[in-house]
Amino acid sequence: MSSYADRLAALREQLKADRLDGFVVPLTDEHMSEYVGSYAQRLAWLTGFEGSAGSAVVLPQEAAIFVDGRYTLQVRSQVSASEWSYQSVPETSIDDWLMVHAAEGARIGYDPWLHSRDWVRQASESLATRGATLVPVKRNPIDAVWEDRPEASMAHLVVQPDQHAGKNAAEKRTDIADWLAKHNADAAVLSALDSIAWAFNVRGADVARTPVALAYAIVNADGTADLFVAGEKIGADVRQHLGNGVRLHERLEFDPFLAKFNGKIVAVDPERAVAAIFESLEKAGAKILPIRDPTVLPKALKNPAEITGQKNAQARDGAAIARFLKWVEEEAPQGELDELTASDHLESLRRENPELRDLSFDTISGAGPNGAIVHYRSSEKTNRKLESGSLYLVDSGGQYVDGTTDITRTVPIGQPTDEMCDRFTRVLQGHIALATALFPKGTRGGQLDSFARRPLWDAGLDYAHGTGHGVGSFLGVHEGPQRIAPMTSSQSGGDEPLAAGMILSNEPGYYKTGAYGIRIENLVLVVEKQVEGAEKEMLGFDTLTHAPIERRLIVKDMLSAKELDWLNSYHADVLAKIAPRLSGDDLAWLEAACAPL
Amino acid sequence: MSSYADRLAALREQLKADRLDGFVVPLTDEHMSEYVGSYAQRLAWLTGFEGSAGSAVVLPQEAAIFVDGRYTLQVRSQVSASEWSYQSVPETSIDDWLMVHAAEGARIGYDPWLHSRDWVRQASESLATRGATLVPVKRNPIDAVWEDRPEASMAHLVVQPDQHAGKNAAEKRTDIADWLAKHNADAAVLSALDSIAWAFNVRGADVARTPVALAYAIVNADGTADLFVAGEKIGADVRQHLGNGVRLHERLEFDPFLAKFNGKIVAVDPERAVAAIFESLEKAGAKILPIRDPTVLPKALKNPAEITGQKNAQARDGAAIARFLKWVEEEAPQGELDELTASDHLESLRRENPELRDLSFDTISGAGPNGAIVHYRSSEKTNRKLESGSLYLVDSGGQYVDGTTDITRTVPIGQPTDEMCDRFTRVLQGHIALATALFPKGTRGGQLDSFARRPLWDAGLDYAHGTGHGVGSFLGVHEGPQRIAPMTSSQSGGDEPLAAGMILSNEPGYYKTGAYGIRIENLVLVVEKQVEGAEKEMLGFDTLTHAPIERRLIVKDMLSAKELDWLNSYHADVLAKIAPRLSGDDLAWLEAACAPL
Repeated sequence: MSSYADRLAALREQLKADRLDGFVVPLTDEHMSEYVGSYAQRLAWLTGFEGSAGSAVVLPQEAAIFVDGRYTLQVRSQVSASEWSYQSVPETSIDDWLMVHAAEGARIGYDPWLHSRDWVRQASESLATRGATLVPVKRNPIDAVWEDRPEASMAHLVVQPDQHAGKNAAEKRTDIADWLAKHNADAAVLSALDSIAWAFNVRGADVARTPVALAYAIVNADGTADLFVAGEKIGADVRQHLGNGVRLHERLEFDPFLAKFNGKIVAVDPERAVAAIFESLEKAGAKILPIRDPTVLPKALKNPAEITGQKNAQARDGAAIARFLKWVEEEAPQGELDELTASDHLESLRRENPELRDLSFDTISGAGPNGAIVHYRSSEKTNRKLESGSLYLVDSGGQYVDGTTDITRTVPIGQPTDEMCDRFTRVLQGHIALATALFPKGTRGGQLDSFARRPLWDAGLDYAHGTGHGVGSFLGVHEGPQRIAPMTSSQSGGDEPLAAGMILSNEPGYYKTGAYGIRIENLVLVVEKQVEGAEKEMLGFDTLTHAPIERRLIVKDMLSAKELDWLNSYHADVLAKIAPRLSGDDLAWLEAACAPL
Repeated sequence: MSSYADRLAALREQLKADRLDGFVVPLTDEHMSEYVGSYAQRLAWLTGFEGSAGSAVVLPQEAAIFVDGRYTLQVRSQVSASEWSYQSVPETSIDDWLMVHAAEGARIGYDPWLHSRDWVRQASESLATRGATLVPVKRNPIDAVWEDRPEASMAHLVVQPDQHAGKNAAEKRTDIADWLAKHNADAAVLSALDSIAWAFNVRGADVARTPVALAYAIVNADGTADLFVAGEKIGADVRQHLGNGVRLHERLEFDPFLAKFNGKIVAVDPERAVAAIFESLEKAGAKILPIRDPTVLPKALKNPAEITGQKNAQARDGAAIARFLKWVEEEAPQGELDELTASDHLESLRRENPELRDLSFDTISGAGPNGAIVHYRSSEKTNRKLESGSLYLVDSGGQYVDGTTDITRTVPIGQPTDEMCDRFTRVLQGHIALATALFPKGTRGGQLDSFARRPLWDAGLDYAHGTGHGVGSFLGVHEGPQRIAPMTSSQSGGDEPLAAGMILSNEPGYYKTGAYGIRIENLVLVVEKQVEGAEKEMLGFDTLTHAPIERRLIVKDMLSAKELDWLNSYHADVLAKIAPRLSGDDLAWLEAACAPL
C-alpha cells in the first residue's frame, strides 16, 4: 500500500498531466451522500482522514484539509502535518482559502458529480477575484491514480414491506405526481439515495451502515417512474414489488437519459443533486425548477407504522444496551476490558435480535481521553483499556427492519471525580431542558439548541457540535431536513420548522481534551402537546430511547425538583418498557439502575 | 385633505401616465432609514398606516399592504379594507405576492433610491417568471400626486463633543482609512444617516426622534472625507469642528459626484445603500466592493465614554420613570387619567432634565386593550382612560446628549386578575432568564431569544416580536447590527455575534388581543464575565435601565430562588442609583417599590 505522501505526489503528477493547478476533494458521492461506499472514499484514500465530514484542496506546493469542530482532534491524529495544513470550518472555507492560496490565473479542477451547483457558482465567483477558474473534470484525477480502488457494491435490493413503510410505493408516487401538478412540472429527479429507498420502499446494502442502493430515479407527472440501478441487483421479488409503474434502467443510463427532457419542466433539488445533473439538463434544453426533493419532508414526518416500528426497535435496542451496561459495570473492574472488546460485545448483544440488519454507524467506543474525540472510531492502534478512575463513552445504534436507533451513554469505571460528576449533571440538565421543552408550531430546531447548552454555559463550558440530528426509518441515522443546532453552524437544518412526526436526537455533551468525554443521547419524537389554556398549537418531544442514565455520575443536589421528577419518571418508563425483555440478574440490575433517585 | 381612496385613485392615474402597471411603496428614505422625515412618509400618506415598518404594492385593480406581526392589529384599524388587502410578512412578501397577482408582461415601477440592490435583483427574478419587468422610475409617482408634500427638514447640525463621543472624528476617519487599506479600496460610501452622524461626531434634527441629518458621505483612503449636506444647515461651529479634512458639498451633488470614481474601488454596503448608488457607481465605471459599512461595528461597540454617558442618561431617565409610576399609582384610581395625559406628563418629567434633546420615539401609552397593540401610538381618536381592573403599558425613551434610553413598564390600575399576574410573572421570568444568561464569545442574539420565551411557551403562549434590538449613543433607538430575535425573523441581526460593548433591549411581552398587553423592557450592556473554571471566554449582560418592576403583578410562588434573588438585587440597584435623584414622597415611594419581595 502506497504512503499518503506517495498518493499526494501521484495526484499532483496527474493534475499536471490534466493541465490543472489544483483539485478540490470533497467527501461525498454522486448522490451528495454523507456516508459513502468504499469506492468513493477518495478523501480517506488521499489523506488518511477517516471522519464522516471534511474536504481537501491540493495545489502544486501546498495542500489543506478542512474539517469542523467535531474533528479538530481526529484530523491531527490521522493526517500528516508535513503534507497538509489543517483548516477549521465554518471559520474558513475552501473558497476563502483558495482566494488567498490559489495562484493568479490558476485552473482549479473539480468533479461535477461530487459538488452542488451552488458551491460551483460561489467558488467560481470567489476564484474569479483572483483571475482563477474552476474547471470541471471529465474523469476524477484521484480515480486515475488510485490503483486498487474498490468496485462499487453490487448488493441486492430488498423490499421494505408496507407493514413497516406504512404507505405503499404507488401511493407515494401518486403524492409526488400531485406535487408535480401543483408546481406545474413534468418530472422530479430523485438523486439522494435515501429519497429513492423511501419513495420505492426498497432497501439496499451499497453503503456501510445505511441501507440504501446506488441509484437515480425520475418520477413523472403521470405517477410512473424511471429507476436507474444496476440490473443484477434486482431480484424477481423486487421486480414484482416495483410493478409496471416503474421502468428499470441501468444506473449508467441516467446521465444520457436526461437528454430526453428538452422543453420539459424538471424539479431538481439544489441541495441534494450534484452540479452535473443540472448541467446535463440545461444542455438538454430542460427548464429546471430548483426546489426541494418532494420526498424530503414526507420522509421526515414518520407515519403511525413507522413510529410503531421505531418504538419496537427501541425496546429491543434498549434491552441490548441495558445488558451491555450491566456487563461493563461487572467486567470493567477486572481491568481487562478495552474499547474493541466492549464494542464487539455490544454488537453481539444487538445481533441476538433477528430484526437487526446492521449497525447504524461504526460504534464510538471511547475510553478515557478517547471519549473526548467527538466522532472517535476505535482501532487496534488507538484501542485503550477501560481504566479505573476514567469515564467510558459509547455511542452506537442499530439498523432494524422497522427502525433506526442511535444512543449514547457515559459510565464511570471505578470512582469518578467530582468534576466528572459536575459535568455529567450539567449535560443531563441540558438533556432534560430540551426533552421537556414546549414550543409553538413553526419553531425551528435552532431556536431550541441553547436550552441544552445553558447549564454548561453557566459554568463557562460548551460542546463543539450540534444538539440533535434527524433520524430515518430503517434509513440514514442522519436524516434531514430538521436539526437542533445553531442556525449559523456549518450543518444545515437548524432553520427547518419542527413538525409532529419528526425524529431527532437529543445529545448534549462535554469534552475535556486528553481526559474524558461525556454525552447523553436519546432519540425523541416531535408530538403535539395539549397545554391547558394554550393560545398556540404547541409541540414537544416524547423520548423514544429507553435505557438507564448513569446514576453514579449524577450530583442530585444540582437537580431542581422538576429535573429530578423527569429523571425518575424516565427511569420508570425504561423499566416498564425494557423489563419484559430481561430476566434473572439482568432484570435485577435494571431494577436497581432505574430505582428512583 | 384628500381621502385615501382619492389618493390611491390619483396614484393609479399617474401610473397610467407613466406607462406603469404597478408600483411598489416601501417605508424608507434614500438612506434606508427605519424612521423617516415627513417628506418621505409616502406609505402613510397613501394608505393611512402609521406603523414604523411596512410596504405596499399598487396594481391597476388591486392593492396590498405588507406588515409584520407587530402591526397585524394596527393595519386593520388604520387602513381601509375596501381598497387594500392585508398581507403578513414573513409568511408572504412583495415578490411572492407579485408573482401571483401581477399581470403577465406587466411593468412594475420602483424608486431606485428607496430599495436595496438585493431586493431589486430578487424581485426582478421573481417577476421574470411571470414575464413581467421591474422598472426604475426617474421621479417617484407618489411625489407627483402628493400636492402638500412637506419639504425636507433644514434643521442645523450640532457638534457631538468628544467628551460624549469618546473618540474624535479625525481618529474615526483614520480607522476607516486603515480599514480601506486593509481591503485595498479607495473610498467608502456612507449613506446610513446614523453612520454619518457617528463618523463625523455631529447630530441633526431632520428625522423625528432620531438626531441625524440628511446627508451622504464618502471617506477616502487618505483619511479625508466628502460630506454632502445642505449648506444652510452648517453653522460656523460645525464647520470648524469638521476641519480641513472634510470637504463640504450640497446633498444634491452626491449623485453626480459618484461619476468621479471611474476605475476606483469603492466600498458600498448592500444592506444600507440604495440600488441607485450602485447603479451610479457602476455607470461611472467604479469597481464596487460590496461590504458592510465600516462604521457599523465600531458604532455598536460602545467605548468607555459612551458607556458612562449611557449610565448617566439612565439614572436621569430612571428618576423620571419612578416619579411617573408613583404619579400613575396615585392619580389613576381617581378615574381621570387617560393615555395622552399620562404620556404628556411623562414627557414633562423627562424634559425637566436639561440634557434631554427629544424623546427617542413616540411614547407607547397603552391602556387596557390598546396595550395589546405592540407598536401602539395613542391619538385623540383612540385615547382611552386608565380604567380600574385594567393594565397600563408604557414604552418610552429619551434622547439625551450622552445616551439614548428605551424602557417599558406595565402597571395595574386597581386590582389585577390572577391571569394578568400569571402572565406578568412569566414575562418577568423570561426577562430574568435573558438578563442572567452567560454565553461564550461568538454566540448570536438569535441563540438567546428562546430563553426569554420559555416561561410563556410552557403555558402555550408567545409574543409576536423579537426580544431585543440594539440601541445607539444619542442616535437611533433601533441600531444594528445585533439583535436578539429568531434568525428566521423578518428583521435582520439575530445572526450577529454579540460582543462586549453592545447595548440591547431585553423586552419580552405578552399580548391578549382586546384585553391587555404586558412588556418588561430594560436596556442591557454586553460585558465580559469571569466564570470560575471557565474554558471559554464568556459574555453576559449588565442591566443599564433602573426603574422599579411592578410588584403587585408578581406571583412570588412562581419564582425560583434564583429569580427572586435577581429581582431583589435588581431593586436594590435601582434604589442605590435612583434614590439620590429623588426626595420626599417620591423617595419614600421608591423605597417601598424597591423593598425586597
